[in-house]
Amino acid sequence: MAKFVIGLDLGGTKIATCVMDAEGEIIKKITLPTLANEGPEAVISRMKKSVYDAIKMSDISKEDILAIGVGAPGPLDSERGLIKNSPNLPGWIKIPLRDVLHKEFKVPLALENDANAAALGEYFYGSGRGIKNFMYITISTGIGGGVVIDGKLLKGANGNAVEIGHTTINFGGPRCGCGNIGCWEAYASGTALARFAREGIRSGKKTIIRDIAGDEDSIKGEHVFAAAKQGDEFAKELVDQEGFYLGVGLANMANSFNPDCIAIGGGVSHEWDLFYDKMIYTMRERGLKANVDNLKVVKAALGPEVGVMGAAAVALRLLK
Amino acid sequence: MAKFVIGLDLGGTKIATCVMDAEGEIIKKITLPTLANEGPEAVISRMKKSVYDAIKMSDISKEDILAIGVGAPGPLDSERGLIKNSPNLPGWIKIPLRDVLHKEFKVPLALENDANAAALGEYFYGSGRGIKNFMYITISTGIGGGVVIDGKLLKGANGNAVEIGHTTINFGGPRCGCGNIGCWEAYASGTALARFAREGIRSGKKTIIRDIAGDEDSIKGEHVFAAAKQGDEFAKELVDQEGFYLGVGLANMANSFNPDCIAIGGGVSHEWDLFYDKMIYTMRERGLKANVDNLKVVKAALGPEVGVMGAAAVALRLLK
Repeated sequence: MAKFVIGLDLGGTKIATCVMDAEGEIIKKITLPTLANEGPEAVISRMKKSVYDAIKMSDISKEDILAIGVGAPGPLDSERGLIKNSPNLPGWIKIPLRDVLHKEFKVPLALENDANAAALGEYFYGSGRGIKNFMYITISTGIGGGVVIDGKLLKGANGNAVEIGHTTINFGGPRCGCGNIGCWEAYASGTALARFAREGIRSGKKTIIRDIAGDEDSIKGEHVFAAAKQGDEFAKELVDQEGFYLGVGLANMANSFNPDCIAIGGGVSHEWDLFYDKMIYTMRERGLKANVDNLKVVKAALGPEVGVMGAAAVALRLLK
Repeated sequence: MAKFVIGLDLGGTKIATCVMDAEGEIIKKITLPTLANEGPEAVISRMKKSVYDAIKMSDISKEDILAIGVGAPGPLDSERGLIKNSPNLPGWIKIPLRDVLHKEFKVPLALENDANAAALGEYFYGSGRGIKNFMYITISTGIGGGVVIDGKLLKGANGNAVEIGHTTINFGGPRCGCGNIGCWEAYASGTALARFAREGIRSGKKTIIRDIAGDEDSIKGEHVFAAAKQGDEFAKELVDQEGFYLGVGLANMANSFNPDCIAIGGGVSHEWDLFYDKMIYTMRERGLKANVDNLKVVKAALGPEVGVMGAAAVALRLLK
């Protein structure tokens, strides 16, 4: 009998679901909108439906599924299988997601912080293969990450280790969405890059960023990168600053976790060429020599599939 | 036949050596001055002598020693057993300490970063007993730490993980001894506390700190604490600020490592009562709820013995 597992990646905007075989091959992958504002009950129904749909489209039956891995936005409690109070999932307060899904599917089930699951995905199927001390960092609307040591996630007490987006790089800096002040995420996420652009425009900077975005409120990180590629001086300054802030944080990661390799994914990483030099220069200048000299920093290999592949990897690990 | 191991803690000022039995009881502990300025060869001779002295004073013979654990100031390469370029050990550049000692004693030998070894000591014999995700932080002239998960050190690629004193908490802050800017250590170590005192005095602050220290150059953290206890307003401000900086860093540690418990040791921890409230308030205000809500922060139990006990614990682990 063939073995299959389900990877389920619950995001703020979409639910990605895959059927994976024991060799780590994806048999089928589907996505549904999360429609998070409909509340937990509706979203959980859609998660169940997506599992049944994926099973059906893979020409297997429910009985062929041996385990389910779920990645979900933190903070959560992976020990107890609870979503606690995710800013990306309004109304999800202490939802026992693991138990609710277990009632439906009656197979071993594990819940992981989405960035941790993604780290495991990148470790097993992407740029982390064979690396003893591996770190994955995603830089998009926020900054998250996971550390995999000897093939095992660094989870911490309740699965919320490596919440690196919310480590302070300037205790007197801007307020972050998490309530803290001067978080790395408040300086170096795509959201922060867009905020710096808007602030500059309001203070009278000459730039084409607004024109590219349509209007000021629509500005995203990608518009800053687009403007920089067209030679916009202010956008180029912002991208340079982005490289600096990323480098400051990477030095902290090197000194904290001493990885052999850091893989960077997420939307901002697509424009890697524009800020790579400044980022690496800053990291090397600021990190301890012993920690940065042999550290490899690479672009993540998996792209948007990383979350659901990581969730499936979480499921596969339940079978070992 | 009874089993014994040696713990050897090489510090910038003293070499502490102990003989420990398999149950973790210290049979004998001795210290010699390091006299680091005499260079590696002389210091290594003294390390060897201290081992022979400790063996003799324990009424056992060299053959009864089954393993040796060495704690030494980082950065080092614990995989290769090398001291690399420690700021506290002038002239020690790529010294193969493990191999040199192995040649003499011909038993299994391991080298660990001193803060990592201390974390292991506090885990096995102090406040960390039985704690699944344990973190030890030492705050004295510098700031260092170690993380122990399920009884195993978080070591990283070459044994330099958890170099937390050199994580940036303000990228535009003062320069640190490590070359980086705005390190936690440059704000919250005993050395930083003394520096803030001197800076204040130079800028005309009224305080008794200098009188307590004798002269401005002799000011240490302990003098600031002594002045605060006598009601000195400027010293009280500095101690409050110390609590704030410690809290900022603890929130980063909670978000990075998600420990169940953090134990704080080192000279500054002796005055814990003076800054505890501010430190914990700041940590709770800044850390993610999921990471700080159930986090215990305690004073380390072992005191100055922690280094050598940790080194012995490193040796005991070689036998398992």
